[in-house]
Amino acid sequence: MKTHQRQLILDYGKFLKVEQHTVELDNGHVIPDWTWVITPDFVNVVLITPDDRFVLFRQSKYAIEGDSLAPVGGYIEPGEDPLEAAKREAFEETGYQSDEWYALGTFIVDANRGCGRAHFFLAKNAYVAGEPHADDLEPQEIVLLTRQQVQQSLQEFKVLPWVAVMTLVLLHDSAAGLP
Amino acid sequence: MKTHQRQLILDYGKFLKVEQHTVELDNGHVIPDWTWVITPDFVNVVLITPDDRFVLFRQSKYAIEGDSLAPVGGYIEPGEDPLEAAKREAFEETGYQSDEWYALGTFIVDANRGCGRAHFFLAKNAYVAGEPHADDLEPQEIVLLTRQQVQQSLQEFKVLPWVAVMTLVLLHDSAAGLP
Repeated sequence: MKTHQRQLILDYGKFLKVEQHTVELDNGHVIPDWTWVITPDFVNVVLITPDDRFVLFRQSKYAIEGDSLAPVGGYIEPGEDPLEAAKREAFEETGYQSDEWYALGTFIVDANRGCGRAHFFLAKNAYVAGEPHADDLEPQEIVLLTRQQVQQSLQEFKVLPWVAVMTLVLLHDSAAGLP
Repeated sequence: MKTHQRQLILDYGKFLKVEQHTVELDNGHVIPDWTWVITPDFVNVVLITPDDRFVLFRQSKYAIEGDSLAPVGGYIEPGEDPLEAAKREAFEETGYQSDEWYALGTFIVDANRGCGRAHFFLAKNAYVAGEPHADDLEPQEIVLLTRQQVQQSLQEFKVLPWVAVMTLVLLHDSAAGLP
């Protein structure tokens, strides 16, 4: 697939832009009105303490009914390295730091339209290094869950990147010895 | 958070609409230009054969570099039940059917902006019942992978919902006996 043309059709600054692309398929067919959605790349981080407690939030968000369990998360600033963003968000939101970080992958959100990329991290042996200073619009309550509680509560992570990073962490740490 | 007003600001039909919402936070602060992205809900399906082979694709998509491993997936038609969409997409794309379906959850894609919901399914003891009739824009090659191959190839599922459904299936089927 080739991109012949790009035109900005909606501009809400750094949080949302939409482009219309002229796209040529491999078979030569041309689609003149392919929409491409530009939202910021983001990180999600699962912090685990030395006694195997997962540092999470119970929080509400505009797009979800009721509240949800959630890992640390936030947008990457322009030019910021994903791992640095992960460390920054973890400390800002929870006050925790860690010296043992694992990158669990980078994934595009929408296979057709883009919608930004998710960068996932695991931080083990996490410890309290300060006070949380979350600037989120909604209240966040920190909760410490055991691994078993997390395994039994996967459906309570109601947002796609949140359940994805939780399952990747559980597999990473499982007996199967996954990457 | 409360929605006071909605205004349609971009309309590309069923594949993409954008609204601007006036949103009141719990603390009373009002945000007049909250963007809300409407894309179709979709399903992803992992088919597993009686001899524990995962029925997957190697395919390219506009938003990804090179190709990716992928599960069955597609948009839900207006009014269609997610499970029916899962069965329809599985048969259309692979020719496989199953009598043993598991719902692995429904997740909103973006906690702030919506962007549709992912409905995930696992189908076990899947069997060939016809020919694939994929109408995808890009070529799809069906590949049958062992469970171990899937576990070792998670990073080759380059799209967020794809890696999410794969990890949920691996956990569902793991010794831990997860839901």
